[in-house]
Amino acid sequence: MGEAARAAARALAHAPTVQKADALRRAAAALREEADAILAANLADMGRAGAAGLGAAMLDRLRLDPGRVAAMAAGLETVAALPDPVGREIAAWTRPNGLRFAQVRVPLGVIGIIYESRPNVTADAAALCVMAGSAAILRGGSEATASNRAIHAAFAHGLAAAGLPEAAVQLVPTADRAAVGAMLAARGLIDVIVPRGGKALVARVEADARVPVLAHLEGLCHVYVDRSADPAKARAIALNAKLRRTGVCGAAETLLIDAATPPALTAALLADLLAAGCELRVTPDLLGLDPRLRTAAAADWSTEYLDAILSVATVDGVAGAIAHVERHGSHHTDAIVAEDSAAAARFLAEVDSAIVLHNASTQFADGGEFGFGAEIGIATGRLHARGPVGLDALTTYKTVVRGDGQVRPG
Amino acid sequence: MGEAARAAARALAHAPTVQKADALRRAAAALREEADAILAANLADMGRAGAAGLGAAMLDRLRLDPGRVAAMAAGLETVAALPDPVGREIAAWTRPNGLRFAQVRVPLGVIGIIYESRPNVTADAAALCVMAGSAAILRGGSEATASNRAIHAAFAHGLAAAGLPEAAVQLVPTADRAAVGAMLAARGLIDVIVPRGGKALVARVEADARVPVLAHLEGLCHVYVDRSADPAKARAIALNAKLRRTGVCGAAETLLIDAATPPALTAALLADLLAAGCELRVTPDLLGLDPRLRTAAAADWSTEYLDAILSVATVDGVAGAIAHVERHGSHHTDAIVAEDSAAAARFLAEVDSAIVLHNASTQFADGGEFGFGAEIGIATGRLHARGPVGLDALTTYKTVVRGDGQVRPG
Repeated sequence: MGEAARAAARALAHAPTVQKADALRRAAAALREEADAILAANLADMGRAGAAGLGAAMLDRLRLDPGRVAAMAAGLETVAALPDPVGREIAAWTRPNGLRFAQVRVPLGVIGIIYESRPNVTADAAALCVMAGSAAILRGGSEATASNRAIHAAFAHGLAAAGLPEAAVQLVPTADRAAVGAMLAARGLIDVIVPRGGKALVARVEADARVPVLAHLEGLCHVYVDRSADPAKARAIALNAKLRRTGVCGAAETLLIDAATPPALTAALLADLLAAGCELRVTPDLLGLDPRLRTAAAADWSTEYLDAILSVATVDGVAGAIAHVERHGSHHTDAIVAEDSAAAARFLAEVDSAIVLHNASTQFADGGEFGFGAEIGIATGRLHARGPVGLDALTTYKTVVRGDGQVRPG
Repeated sequence: MGEAARAAARALAHAPTVQKADALRRAAAALREEADAILAANLADMGRAGAAGLGAAMLDRLRLDPGRVAAMAAGLETVAALPDPVGREIAAWTRPNGLRFAQVRVPLGVIGIIYESRPNVTADAAALCVMAGSAAILRGGSEATASNRAIHAAFAHGLAAAGLPEAAVQLVPTADRAAVGAMLAARGLIDVIVPRGGKALVARVEADARVPVLAHLEGLCHVYVDRSADPAKARAIALNAKLRRTGVCGAAETLLIDAATPPALTAALLADLLAAGCELRVTPDLLGLDPRLRTAAAADWSTEYLDAILSVATVDGVAGAIAHVERHGSHHTDAIVAEDSAAAARFLAEVDSAIVLHNASTQFADGGEFGFGAEIGIATGRLHARGPVGLDALTTYKTVVRGDGQVRPG
């Protein structure tokens, strides 16, 4: 599979934008035409998963319906309309000896995606890889085998209809558990692995990979409300950051409140969250504000709840907030709410996270919200890409040097 | 050491440019002041290495003299004068909802350098890391222990004189062989490992690292002379690419000659190289041109000689050259000599190497020649950095989002 992918990657690397976009639009059409087969396959997966006792949340992730298939197809059309990163000049300069340098985006090559139950990843990830000029090797969860095969078949029909090699997107037979190990060890055949899934999956990939990994670890995101915060902004942002969706990596897990915040604002922040059904685990100084408050345990400051639970700490100004985030955060996404521009500037500069926000919700941690159109995940590592991984981050670059016969002296 | 480095990295990340530059200039001064101690330490290393039977090439790499110490000091001053990448805006955009996005360069954090005999790496690598705002953990070769300690001591004096933490640059006790393994496994403490040394070292690092690696593998570089080549440019470039220095990674190892090249140019190319003392291993069709030519063996096409030896193949035009490079090259640096702009464009687009050149010598594969001022190596991986790794490639970025109370709908 690795060698077939490499050959396909060579063809994709020089495929014109219109051909890649055509493949994605034809794949979208195939998804719509083959929706019945996809839904039947998904029903079979759901039956097996139900019999195996999968939890309700997992079953919901696995489940497809006509709306979800339509959304998958629309997603491919969105990616097809994105600007092609391949060939784009990143930088250009000329040296005193007349040599002209240009850094130009080129495809990564072969991208391995290892993911869990959501079958839509099969189409989304394939589309991003193809548009970025790379071949994809997909290894989905075993519970979604039939769904993934049906979606992959539709995608392959789109590739073939556009004259691109079907090996541009290959699906690993998911029954084969050894396949994950083989992918992680496939240095030279796979250029980068992108894991998409829960902590256990990402941890295994990071521990065993011999291939570079663009990983997304947990999002332990903070909202810090400074003493200078505008009360309306603080209340809206705290509520949205925690509760818009609690299961996404950009959801806030800890609210930090400046000890010098006006008591009325602190009370209102907690009252809003409680009224919206959020459980609050707080530092002892806040307990008196409401009988429903509980004392946070030490573990709460480093727990990614992904649920309607929030830890709340009083901190000593922006310095205290930065120290708390540094100690407990996951360097994913953190926000400050403040009208004091010096406090905001300090927070934005000193919090070492992939995404730092001023007066905006942490739930904007998303490739679509960044304007990337689509993303394959949010990278929390420090190398290559940091934050939402869109088409650009799925490329690398080469340096093209143009001369007129220059040789190097000395 | 990892934790001390992490703490130092936090201080360095926000150190002003003038303070970092001051530290490097003071370290340069300390190298000059402590030159006697450094040379004495080096003499001791040389004595031990000679007794242990180290080869002449290794001994030359290990050897310091007043000129080399002066060059090391001057190198630090060069890095001190480079533009600081930290805080530089890479991109900025605004979304329809009013959110303002900016990608800003930030330090990588803690950089581990694992290197072999050249003691000057101790100063060079430390300077680049500090200027890029990162802490360095250095593990030099055991044969250079005393030299590295003396150089490191001088560097530490410079850091201290500038008010920066001495733990910003730490030297691993080189007697401890387990240290390399510990560095390679130090995920979370070391953010990236840069190996500098021979194939065996780089291979070990790539095989065992649990930390991301910016590696430089071999440079199997090609010069392709197209039928449309200007004869003077072709002769000058072939000679320079192979022989300016044979031991650098950008030295050409294979000359590809278009079968349709005028016979006079082919003969002149080979005669020039033979006259300059280069051994040539050629495809059989070229044997008749000179009695000193030998037939290349299959292994020659994938051998990095790093010596005055060159393999020479006749190929079928630019397509044949691209196929040869794809099959045998190491994706490092490859050049085309051609006046035909279509042939050049095709070569530059289709050869998937970190550096591709048109009408210029492969020996320009160097951070200094790129205008980067200094480099820590040439990355041959595909992620993060590709080609010479200067200050910019030693940073990562974060996204700063500025709003006015925006929350995410839906």
